[in-house]
Amino acid sequence: MNAEIITIGDEILIGQIIDTNSAFLGKELNKIGVSVYQITSVQDDKGHILKSLKEAEENADIIIITGGLGPTKDDITKHTICEYFDDTLVQNDAVLRHVEHLFKAYIKRPILESNKTQALVPSKAKVLMNRFGTAPGMWLEKNGKVFISLPGVPYEMKALITNSVLPELRNKFKFPFIQHKTVLTYGLGESALADRIEDWENNLPKIIKLAYLPSLGRVRLRLSGKSMNQSELETTINEQVALLLPQIEDIFVGFEDEHPIEVIIGNHLTLQGKTLAVAESCTGGRIAQAFTANAGASKYFKGSVVTYATESKVNVLNVSENDINEHSVVSKVVAESMAKNVRETFNTDFGISTTGNAGPTKGDSDAEVGTVWIAIATKDYVFSEVFNFSNQREKVIMKATNKAFEMLRKEILKK
Amino acid sequence: MNAEIITIGDEILIGQIIDTNSAFLGKELNKIGVSVYQITSVQDDKGHILKSLKEAEENADIIIITGGLGPTKDDITKHTICEYFDDTLVQNDAVLRHVEHLFKAYIKRPILESNKTQALVPSKAKVLMNRFGTAPGMWLEKNGKVFISLPGVPYEMKALITNSVLPELRNKFKFPFIQHKTVLTYGLGESALADRIEDWENNLPKIIKLAYLPSLGRVRLRLSGKSMNQSELETTINEQVALLLPQIEDIFVGFEDEHPIEVIIGNHLTLQGKTLAVAESCTGGRIAQAFTANAGASKYFKGSVVTYATESKVNVLNVSENDINEHSVVSKVVAESMAKNVRETFNTDFGISTTGNAGPTKGDSDAEVGTVWIAIATKDYVFSEVFNFSNQREKVIMKATNKAFEMLRKEILKK
Repeated sequence: MNAEIITIGDEILIGQIIDTNSAFLGKELNKIGVSVYQITSVQDDKGHILKSLKEAEENADIIIITGGLGPTKDDITKHTICEYFDDTLVQNDAVLRHVEHLFKAYIKRPILESNKTQALVPSKAKVLMNRFGTAPGMWLEKNGKVFISLPGVPYEMKALITNSVLPELRNKFKFPFIQHKTVLTYGLGESALADRIEDWENNLPKIIKLAYLPSLGRVRLRLSGKSMNQSELETTINEQVALLLPQIEDIFVGFEDEHPIEVIIGNHLTLQGKTLAVAESCTGGRIAQAFTANAGASKYFKGSVVTYATESKVNVLNVSENDINEHSVVSKVVAESMAKNVRETFNTDFGISTTGNAGPTKGDSDAEVGTVWIAIATKDYVFSEVFNFSNQREKVIMKATNKAFEMLRKEILKK
Repeated sequence: MNAEIITIGDEILIGQIIDTNSAFLGKELNKIGVSVYQITSVQDDKGHILKSLKEAEENADIIIITGGLGPTKDDITKHTICEYFDDTLVQNDAVLRHVEHLFKAYIKRPILESNKTQALVPSKAKVLMNRFGTAPGMWLEKNGKVFISLPGVPYEMKALITNSVLPELRNKFKFPFIQHKTVLTYGLGESALADRIEDWENNLPKIIKLAYLPSLGRVRLRLSGKSMNQSELETTINEQVALLLPQIEDIFVGFEDEHPIEVIIGNHLTLQGKTLAVAESCTGGRIAQAFTANAGASKYFKGSVVTYATESKVNVLNVSENDINEHSVVSKVVAESMAKNVRETFNTDFGISTTGNAGPTKGDSDAEVGTVWIAIATKDYVFSEVFNFSNQREKVIMKATNKAFEMLRKEILKK
């Protein structure tokens, strides 16, 4: 069973927004056993949308269309779908009442005629109510193929997928089982890893596909399989993983499942009843932000400091001015006092710090661009490591953030 | 002149990574007058890649392909392109020397055979040297169409586009002029805005296209035009903007150009020689991170504190415990002491703070999920506003961040 995702909107093609909806859709469809064959982003142009609908109908069983459902003139998806299905728009009273309710409860402005047109839907469409916005989702069928049109606003689309689309799809089709298992490794490059596990890779069973996903200091190995026989597939994947692990013991961090490493760390801290504080310099808030993006972070994350200016390391974190003058802000001693002092200030079990130079120019230190010290403090000791993460600003920040997570995870899981 | 972007990789289709390359490519191509007709993401599958190359050749003059150029077995782009061009792979000595150099200088591991195959390129391809990685870019031509294959690693792809692809394209073609002007508004919904400017929109000249880009508290209005006559196009767009502005005076924030609002704020602060400190609670580091992502932030951004736990508001920011008990952590008085104290602690001209409840459950406060106080402190005064940003965690964090930027920008530009 194949799906195609069509995202509609000039803003995607001119790069004004990044299409994050497709990744969400890909992930969710995969979970229920639907492979995404293709993602196609097209302009707000009737001819182009019609063409892409036709091509998608040839390639896929399920076509999910996002975007172009707003109340303004540049939003033409609904009319174009109407034309594709040789249909007309009719008013849906439930949607109209919902739109009126949203305006009364949240928007607190008189409702406009253009808002009311949100209640017009193709007569052949089944309406999927959009709790968080005025544009309803629409489900249409043609020659055994399913077309689902959803608003482009991410949280509206996500809620519709979770609450309406996936349950309806599961009702309608019997899906094969898709399984991915992603092995997280840190510290060895893609090609060196491939070289090491070449024999294993060459002997993988036909139904298992392997992908290398390298990114700034880590390589994820993804094993994927698809089968109508769930238990056979699971067994096969687990057998292959069991053969792999002894070969990568030194670089294996864990399995990715659904969760990024900061969520895994958060879960461990929560289970252990332990807490964390962060002192960031070159990573500039990225570590804190990654933790606090997740609900439940307040259980373990007490807070953080970004001491971007050198003087703030002294004023806010009590780093010794002498140490800075003697060793520079990018040094072992400064990284370690930052970790130690932030842990004490926030009264936590763990403190972690970064200080480095992300570039493009040297800052208040002679350290080469790309040099980063990362330190971890516990109640009993503090330690640090130094890295050189290349000369590209974004890469330095991301690599330092990833490395901080890697070090922290190891420390937390230490017996 | 049209382009099509083809991004290759199963990891995109199963949602394991978000395709950020396409947005960058769309933006850069637009700047030189090339419209992106379509973005197509396809699997690591020879048949599928060949099909998409053929379709792209029919629709576009320039085809940019990213991804699938790694040294491992799942990377098949190079072989597939070879097949499409009926070509064979030959060793490029300059690339080989470069790969060997990278291994010696940075990777510090013996070079493997698989790394050396990175120097194999189709004989008909012009090689674009990749300074930051081992996979070179490749430029091929067929029936007057240009095919450019680039690595999928974002910073490698970006450097190749900026340093090689755009200059070569500009050399080869005479492009029409494309202009976008994006008007940033805060505080009025999409449909109410459309209603207000309906007459103006209906009377726009044919060559100007208007798009509404709503996102969490703001609506961007994008005017786009394309013409061989640059000055005429500029005049037309400026005339239309001049007609628009008096109608949206109360909600107009500025023009977007290239820059997000945090960069605009940073530029103003740098020009004024002023500095900023941030105290975040519910936004969890997102404001700090947005500022520090930009090179040059150290000129105005001294640092920030994330006081996520209530006790850290007291310990780290000296917020009065009495105030918290009397008014709760989500209150005017707490927001204002946070802004005031963070400004004093970091010794800056401006301090800004957020405190609120992003949900999904109520925290250390009785405030409804979605309630956020934002305060700004200057040397002379402190003030705050309260908002309710709905009940969806991600939306609350993003809206609060956007609103903080909006308030800060207004304050900084105050006479």
